[in-house]
Amino acid sequence: MARAPDRIRVRRVPELGRYDRPAIESILDRGLVAHVAFVDRGEPVCIPLLHARVGEKLYVHGSTASRAMRTLAAGEPACVTVTLVHGLVLARSAFEHSANYESVVVFGRFEQVSDEAERLTAFRLFTEKLLPGRWDEVRPPLAKELKATTILALPIEEASAKIRSGPPEDDETEDAELEIWAGELPFVTSYGEPVPSPGLRAGIPVPASVRALLEPAETGSA
Amino acid sequence: MARAPDRIRVRRVPELGRYDRPAIESILDRGLVAHVAFVDRGEPVCIPLLHARVGEKLYVHGSTASRAMRTLAAGEPACVTVTLVHGLVLARSAFEHSANYESVVVFGRFEQVSDEAERLTAFRLFTEKLLPGRWDEVRPPLAKELKATTILALPIEEASAKIRSGPPEDDETEDAELEIWAGELPFVTSYGEPVPSPGLRAGIPVPASVRALLEPAETGSA
Repeated sequence: MARAPDRIRVRRVPELGRYDRPAIESILDRGLVAHVAFVDRGEPVCIPLLHARVGEKLYVHGSTASRAMRTLAAGEPACVTVTLVHGLVLARSAFEHSANYESVVVFGRFEQVSDEAERLTAFRLFTEKLLPGRWDEVRPPLAKELKATTILALPIEEASAKIRSGPPEDDETEDAELEIWAGELPFVTSYGEPVPSPGLRAGIPVPASVRALLEPAETGSA
Repeated sequence: MARAPDRIRVRRVPELGRYDRPAIESILDRGLVAHVAFVDRGEPVCIPLLHARVGEKLYVHGSTASRAMRTLAAGEPACVTVTLVHGLVLARSAFEHSANYESVVVFGRFEQVSDEAERLTAFRLFTEKLLPGRWDEVRPPLAKELKATTILALPIEEASAKIRSGPPEDDETEDAELEIWAGELPFVTSYGEPVPSPGLRAGIPVPASVRALLEPAETGSA
């Protein structure tokens, strides 16, 4: 593996570090929320934002009136972290307890997206990221809605992934002799029953986009 | 409600802001991972860490060799964000699509925990946060393990919560006349089957701590 640039090198547990683009993109694409950090008057601020990736850019959006959006739009340095937690790692020792997870950290500076076609594309991406197929079901953004929205793009250039998976670390130690259960407890995330909006007009069925998400669970297949 | 200090006031959508301690503590306690941001050579860094709260302190831990731990232990300004995502908010318009979530942001400076009794208590808290009841099942930390671990505490003083719940915003607009389904799609998180460590000694049953988590799902009750 090529040596990663200094800032993104995973120092503590180097064997967990991944710098290849497929790993990075896969984690970004499966993560709904990004934690976006920036510096405001010398102090760190970290906020959760929905995001969407296309190609080598990571998009976020927010109100044009948002202070965070204005700071990020000014091209201040940012750090975007996306974390997926997959389960608990239960060791014999308290010390080796952990979680299985995947995370990506991207460093860079956001750029404001001003091209109208790219802005509309980003809106489509945000909608499709939340729920694939949804864009074709909904009313597209109006000019005034686009105008009220700041869309920012971060080039995914300085990025690294960190992945912890598998059993606890103490299988090969004398702790393995202890009369203590050790293993993994996976998290399982699924969707509940759709809740119609109180103001939903009568006779409008659950749409194809939602049914497509729920069907695998309903039929019991993957 | 008292006016919140300027930095923690939720500016964009003030009605989402919550400053009361029970709301803040509840979100921190239900969130497994904290995103911890700090400033390193003028630029923001944001990393995911396991955390645990007790009283008015939020604890994190890591290797004494970790650069992030050293920076935070030096008392540099930090921002800790914990986010829970509960589901998708599906509106008639692309613009009103969102997610239901709860988040807490805490600003402050970590202090290194050096008192041995408090350090051991923090270890217990980390273990119990991952899995209630686990501390009494496992081997407690050895002196060398405690020595290899930096434990940091952040006073929860400057903090705010932000909560978005309920249906999409467009029930009261002309969009509600459209032939488009709108509502919420909740996420459901549960536990999968425990996976014994490959090196687990034969005859060690799944422990009470894990069974207690799984039982509600197994009996179908809440």
